[in-house]
Amino acid sequence: MENRKLVMIPGPTPTVRSINDQMGRETVAFGDPEFVNDFSELIVDLKEMWGVNGECFVVAGSGTMAMEMAIANVTKRDDNVLIVSNGFFGDRFIDICTRKGLNIDVLSAEWGDIVSVEDIENKLKEKDYAAITVTHVDTSTGARAPIEEIGKVIRKFPNTVYIVDGVAATAGEREYVDKMGIDILFTGSQKAFGVAPGLAILWAGQKALNRRKSLGTIPEYYIDFEKWIPIMNDPTKYYATPAVNMIWALKESVRLIKEEGIEERYERHTRVSHAFNASLEALGFEILTKKEYRCSTLSTVLYPEGIEDGEFRRILAEEGVMVAGGLGDYAGKMFRIGHMGNIDDHTIYSTMATIERTLIKLGYKYEVGIGLKTLLEKM
Amino acid sequence: MENRKLVMIPGPTPTVRSINDQMGRETVAFGDPEFVNDFSELIVDLKEMWGVNGECFVVAGSGTMAMEMAIANVTKRDDNVLIVSNGFFGDRFIDICTRKGLNIDVLSAEWGDIVSVEDIENKLKEKDYAAITVTHVDTSTGARAPIEEIGKVIRKFPNTVYIVDGVAATAGEREYVDKMGIDILFTGSQKAFGVAPGLAILWAGQKALNRRKSLGTIPEYYIDFEKWIPIMNDPTKYYATPAVNMIWALKESVRLIKEEGIEERYERHTRVSHAFNASLEALGFEILTKKEYRCSTLSTVLYPEGIEDGEFRRILAEEGVMVAGGLGDYAGKMFRIGHMGNIDDHTIYSTMATIERTLIKLGYKYEVGIGLKTLLEKM
Repeated sequence: MENRKLVMIPGPTPTVRSINDQMGRETVAFGDPEFVNDFSELIVDLKEMWGVNGECFVVAGSGTMAMEMAIANVTKRDDNVLIVSNGFFGDRFIDICTRKGLNIDVLSAEWGDIVSVEDIENKLKEKDYAAITVTHVDTSTGARAPIEEIGKVIRKFPNTVYIVDGVAATAGEREYVDKMGIDILFTGSQKAFGVAPGLAILWAGQKALNRRKSLGTIPEYYIDFEKWIPIMNDPTKYYATPAVNMIWALKESVRLIKEEGIEERYERHTRVSHAFNASLEALGFEILTKKEYRCSTLSTVLYPEGIEDGEFRRILAEEGVMVAGGLGDYAGKMFRIGHMGNIDDHTIYSTMATIERTLIKLGYKYEVGIGLKTLLEKM
Repeated sequence: MENRKLVMIPGPTPTVRSINDQMGRETVAFGDPEFVNDFSELIVDLKEMWGVNGECFVVAGSGTMAMEMAIANVTKRDDNVLIVSNGFFGDRFIDICTRKGLNIDVLSAEWGDIVSVEDIENKLKEKDYAAITVTHVDTSTGARAPIEEIGKVIRKFPNTVYIVDGVAATAGEREYVDKMGIDILFTGSQKAFGVAPGLAILWAGQKALNRRKSLGTIPEYYIDFEKWIPIMNDPTKYYATPAVNMIWALKESVRLIKEEGIEERYERHTRVSHAFNASLEALGFEILTKKEYRCSTLSTVLYPEGIEDGEFRRILAEEGVMVAGGLGDYAGKMFRIGHMGNIDDHTIYSTMATIERTLIKLGYKYEVGIGLKTLLEKM
């Protein structure tokens, strides 16, 4: 029989049966009392679990839309925005901000490295920034920004709204919104929540909500906080039709997270990523990300001599494991593999076995089994 | 046993098993060759079936987002826009346009009536409008605008982009984009396509696409045509993660439409709505919409003396049929019932029987069975 395809790209991540089942339910009216109750409970859980005294928005769209939603609700034309970029997705804020008439400054790191907290603090002293954007984990590089330390610095700048892009992090990396001084955090459903793509999830603390209020009417309509706040607090109200099935699926994901324990989930991601990276290194691969900045949700993996990207990924896919290629300058030199969301140890073992099998098929000379041995020792 | 709940609100509409099954599939990578192929075929079908020599966009979001997408891509600050409003959803363009700094003129009809083609033509002669918006079927009133006749008039005004809001119409009411002179048509997945909510679907003809090009960079990011055009023509490319499962579900809906025949589908909607309205009238209800402007996708139904809205809808829901209440001034005076999408005759018969059962329970004096008898005679 043909192998199942394990979706080990860094999002969409594998969707478990109970989440699929919620997706596949017969759709109900968005005013259906049971659905209203489900939606309300979901919002309460999300606020509580991510520790925000503010609002949580769950809106049909994507992580990209959430990026724009964050910017649109806390800035106005000619405001200054500081973009901290550790890769492709950090850079994405440049286009979003520029087209809205914002003045941007960009602090960029080499791919695999991060912008230092000191550089950020120094830059913030230079002028009055309405907002700063930081990508928690940049999916292009696997680098994790020290969002808590940055948060401590930003507390000294009361006019600056702290936006954290959690797309490749949230529900896999530790994030406590108010406690870390984060003003806006967002993600998409298809990453560490392990739901199909199609929802943006965004948390906003009081500082961000006050900023929104101070702006009056904003040019954006669908992504306007003010339109959604009444609905998120009382889903019997109507603004735009909520994505009923996607919301059920996200609710099931949250149920699974509570069942696992959110702290235990974070620890699992740490444990699995350490073991997985060590195994890849034992096989002769190199991890792009500097050791101290490696995230727990994905690995960015440079090929050893003699392994060709296209061939490796083709055979790996035939054997049943999907991974992603490198972005930007790293296209063809690297693959990116996710290990976030609702993946159990079976999936991790089998992914490593399939990587080894692929190396054998490619005639790569190495100590067969060393990847799996390392995994067993470290996990 | 408890009755199934028939979702007869004017959207979300009932989702059939084969569409649910697509929703419930294990999510795959958006670069998965099979998914890419599915997505490509869907876009080709949508363009062909709605007759557009241009682009079709399928984006995670809602019909409300599609409204903003239409406006954002064909207007710039200080442009004139003519809003033709036959109800609540027509009016929604006022807020969208105003916040973007557009100068608006509004032609409004009494609820249940429509703005005449003559009034539109006269208004268009007054100044240079960058765009005109017309709601094909306003879900608040059930009034259907003569979009083909309006299209003929707009051909005389080459600077005016013709935007048709098809949310409560598309896939149930006849729409041929290029042939009717429509420049932008859009809808949401949860109406006559019979898919769960969560996708915006938008068609743009050459005139709209040329306008978009002439605007250069626009302030909006996620809903920018230029960002999505490469993806819709080649889904191996990446912009924002497509809503994989929702796209499969929409593809299944399109397959069902092709199986039924799109013209046969339009005829079914006409036949069912005529019969359904006649049955409601036989029961003593009154249809809000003037006879000549009644749409085929929903009915807006005024209560006879002695029937109280809250009680009627509560018992109806207990008996297994969900309908929507009236909006605006008609809250409490009217209910709205959808008969669009993938609903077969069984659902229609049973909905009428349940309405009659509810009337009996309410002690309403009428000729029991006259609704069903009329339905049988007219269908």
